[in-house]
Amino acid sequence: MDVAQVLIDGKWREADAEGTFHAENPAKGEAFALAFPTSRWSDCDLALTSATKAAAELRTINPAKIATFLDAYANNIEAAAVTIVAAAAEETALPITPRLKDVELPRTTNQLRQAATAVREESWRHATLDLEKNIRSCFAPIGPVVIFGPNNFPFAFNGVSGGDFAAAIAAGNPVIAKAHPLHPNTTRLLAEQALKALETSGLPLATVQMIYNVSNENGLKLVSDPRIGAVGFTGSRTAGLHLKRAAEDAGKPIYLEMSSINPVIFLPGALAERSEQLAQELVDSVLAGSGQFCTSPNLILIFETPQTEAFLAQIAKSFNDRAAQPLLSTAGRKQLHQGVTALIDAGAQLITGGDHAPGDGYRYANTLLRATAKQFLAAPHDLQREIFGNATLAVTISNQFELASILRLLEGNLTGTFYSAKSGADDVTYNDIAPLLREKVGRLLNDKMPTGVAVSPAMNHGGPYPSTSHPGSTSVGIPTSIARFAKLDCYDAVRPERLPDILKDAIANPNTWRSINGAWVKG
Amino acid sequence: MDVAQVLIDGKWREADAEGTFHAENPAKGEAFALAFPTSRWSDCDLALTSATKAAAELRTINPAKIATFLDAYANNIEAAAVTIVAAAAEETALPITPRLKDVELPRTTNQLRQAATAVREESWRHATLDLEKNIRSCFAPIGPVVIFGPNNFPFAFNGVSGGDFAAAIAAGNPVIAKAHPLHPNTTRLLAEQALKALETSGLPLATVQMIYNVSNENGLKLVSDPRIGAVGFTGSRTAGLHLKRAAEDAGKPIYLEMSSINPVIFLPGALAERSEQLAQELVDSVLAGSGQFCTSPNLILIFETPQTEAFLAQIAKSFNDRAAQPLLSTAGRKQLHQGVTALIDAGAQLITGGDHAPGDGYRYANTLLRATAKQFLAAPHDLQREIFGNATLAVTISNQFELASILRLLEGNLTGTFYSAKSGADDVTYNDIAPLLREKVGRLLNDKMPTGVAVSPAMNHGGPYPSTSHPGSTSVGIPTSIARFAKLDCYDAVRPERLPDILKDAIANPNTWRSINGAWVKG
Repeated sequence: MDVAQVLIDGKWREADAEGTFHAENPAKGEAFALAFPTSRWSDCDLALTSATKAAAELRTINPAKIATFLDAYANNIEAAAVTIVAAAAEETALPITPRLKDVELPRTTNQLRQAATAVREESWRHATLDLEKNIRSCFAPIGPVVIFGPNNFPFAFNGVSGGDFAAAIAAGNPVIAKAHPLHPNTTRLLAEQALKALETSGLPLATVQMIYNVSNENGLKLVSDPRIGAVGFTGSRTAGLHLKRAAEDAGKPIYLEMSSINPVIFLPGALAERSEQLAQELVDSVLAGSGQFCTSPNLILIFETPQTEAFLAQIAKSFNDRAAQPLLSTAGRKQLHQGVTALIDAGAQLITGGDHAPGDGYRYANTLLRATAKQFLAAPHDLQREIFGNATLAVTISNQFELASILRLLEGNLTGTFYSAKSGADDVTYNDIAPLLREKVGRLLNDKMPTGVAVSPAMNHGGPYPSTSHPGSTSVGIPTSIARFAKLDCYDAVRPERLPDILKDAIANPNTWRSINGAWVKG
Repeated sequence: MDVAQVLIDGKWREADAEGTFHAENPAKGEAFALAFPTSRWSDCDLALTSATKAAAELRTINPAKIATFLDAYANNIEAAAVTIVAAAAEETALPITPRLKDVELPRTTNQLRQAATAVREESWRHATLDLEKNIRSCFAPIGPVVIFGPNNFPFAFNGVSGGDFAAAIAAGNPVIAKAHPLHPNTTRLLAEQALKALETSGLPLATVQMIYNVSNENGLKLVSDPRIGAVGFTGSRTAGLHLKRAAEDAGKPIYLEMSSINPVIFLPGALAERSEQLAQELVDSVLAGSGQFCTSPNLILIFETPQTEAFLAQIAKSFNDRAAQPLLSTAGRKQLHQGVTALIDAGAQLITGGDHAPGDGYRYANTLLRATAKQFLAAPHDLQREIFGNATLAVTISNQFELASILRLLEGNLTGTFYSAKSGADDVTYNDIAPLLREKVGRLLNDKMPTGVAVSPAMNHGGPYPSTSHPGSTSVGIPTSIARFAKLDCYDAVRPERLPDILKDAIANPNTWRSINGAWVKG
């Protein structure tokens, strides 16, 4: 049997495997021929030892080499794009165009290049100089970072190429990536390009290592190993909370993005003005990526207005008209169905969908459920369950008081959205209610669906627990995301010639912003 | 029996007490007459409910009022300084002058005023505007903060007046302070001044609440309550780790400062140049506050040179010559003795001290121990035990390789210090060794004892685990410390008139630094 090799210490090598698995083509429901190994602890151990050595080397290296690597990796991914995109399409059933080729792959290389720019500029290090007291500080690498990527973005959140990866590398840390077992071949192809870029840029070859799978026990051991600096995780709440406890008990910072239902609120004036257009926007957002987005609207809050029933009917009709796309896995479809069933059990009414859909692969009918605010308030826990897939729950609201009560009972979310009248007719309600939603979300939107997550320095792809593990940090947005993987190094009365270049009185880099005696100064 | 009242919801009120305790005068070993309550959960519950309301009000208030409160509180503390200092001296046995009156109290009011300045300037909010994408973000209050102060700084780290307090309030959060049971009366007097300042500045009166003590069980319940935003803790590792797990399991960020042995390294050239002066500096640092500083040097690493034995003899002589000062408590003395005994059991040799000292109160003889590098390397865990008090361990080192081996085995520390020759004779060794120490500490010093912790924007009073819970954050240093108690609020396409003032295109505050399209701009 052909078994893929793992990337450890700069070499593709046979894994010390305790088993193998096969990924599937979810559009066909067929397993691929290539087997992938589940690594024993010895693979993790070797990766950890190699990462420790690489971390020490990286601390002494000219950061420009890290930037060179990130740019070279982006170039390599583009040069191999046809192969990588084809593999991802096979493993995820996501469309090659526009999704994989025209959106996610360019987003991924853009992230790597933005990270390269941040490394060259060095402003992310937040150099702070108190010249009078001769105390200086800046961010520095935290140590090897273990990254778990999710199932739903094979490039942009992949442990070996995504946002956490770019941030951890930009901070000067080696990465040990765990591939998601639903797209191991895509991850393998990316890691090949990473290794080539390491070779040409002169970074330690163990700066990027990749294994495909480990037992749950070894996963917990990995995130709590003394040799690591921090952990990045994007995935399910169940897996995330297990890793969180293990890492935190060992004193290791762990950044998790776990779950979010992304409430979208339609105020009465917005429905009166443009309900047809809004229904269309909502359908596009809920069905994007078959609803398998962290920012997919799972909870729609709609005031009962003369337009509301037509609005819901239009959504239901669009859901029926559009063909259900394959989900990422049979397990995902099963969980989606369990979620829909649980919502119904908790009082929601099924409008359309609610079962497997015809066609090849793991399809589930586009699903709309509804409930009243009273029902939601009677079962707030069960009715804010995340349903990861092409399904959403609309809750109709008879007055502002009900809406306020619902918002107060929401868990933390990545995003929250208001649609309101352009005329200003909803402004009084907005001003009353927005502060309640503001408290529960990382990103507040107006008149725009939350599904898109721009790579901007001002982005917050984060939010209050349990959507993430810390409401003050973001996994998307450069340079902000980089500081998560840094320690704060202070120099008190350290002799000038011994200071890192970035903290010397005169700085060579003309592009670095530093805070000197309380004022931000460039170069 | 006279029992002190707790400060909950803007009122001094009788606690719902499950017991009472008395603080002691550690210089006399006598208990004070006034009893203090151990609160039942109902006190915590009421404080949490009141803090939740205050948090909502604070979010809508002009931040200038928060600054007014911080300044007024600093003024009030100064006006009541004689009483407060006298109470602290009685409860801690720390000298009124210079320590309490001339150093710690001014430091405390200075911190409050620096926090007020940061609130007025608003640069701590790290406003970031991406005008092209119309995405904007800034830090915002995280919610009610529970603060546990330590035993050793009755003002500057007190839960109701110290650095964590100033940072949490500056971020716009109400504080629930737990007094340290060794100085409840000092804390009560400070809280009185806080309440007066709340009244005159127009903040919600529940912005500052204070209880004296709770059971361990209720402490864990408090830090994991859904109504809180975050926790600040300074104290012992044992207590800290219990609170850490409870808070983190509930998804609550907790910032802990727990333990540190603050290695100080004397390179050969430094001893050759100025060993007498250095011995003096070391003695002053180790005995400052009877060694009850988080940054007290517990581990001295000295190369074996012709000066080394005289250097150690001079330290021993000074330790003998200086009268031992009372420690903070009988429990502290017991733990110190246990620590010294454990070091001896692990192979250290007692040079001087090692037992209770004569005089009133809880005195322990100034204690010097020594060991060889070989002994340290044979018992690295036991010989890096924190000894909180006027004792230190000197480890003699025969070569650079031994020093490197020791540094590799150190746990995370707040500080690490090198003394080296002014002539440059130690520079080669420094350059080889400093990177190893750099990895293990938050603050690296040259030719300066670590005991002083300046309140500077460039300070890092933090360090790798287990000295603190996150190596990227600091509990001292404004504005850096404030962001710990903040969430990141992102606004995506939010209509201009609905943005917080700090994120509007034009800003009214001329003193605020903002990052606009990647450049820092003021006003």
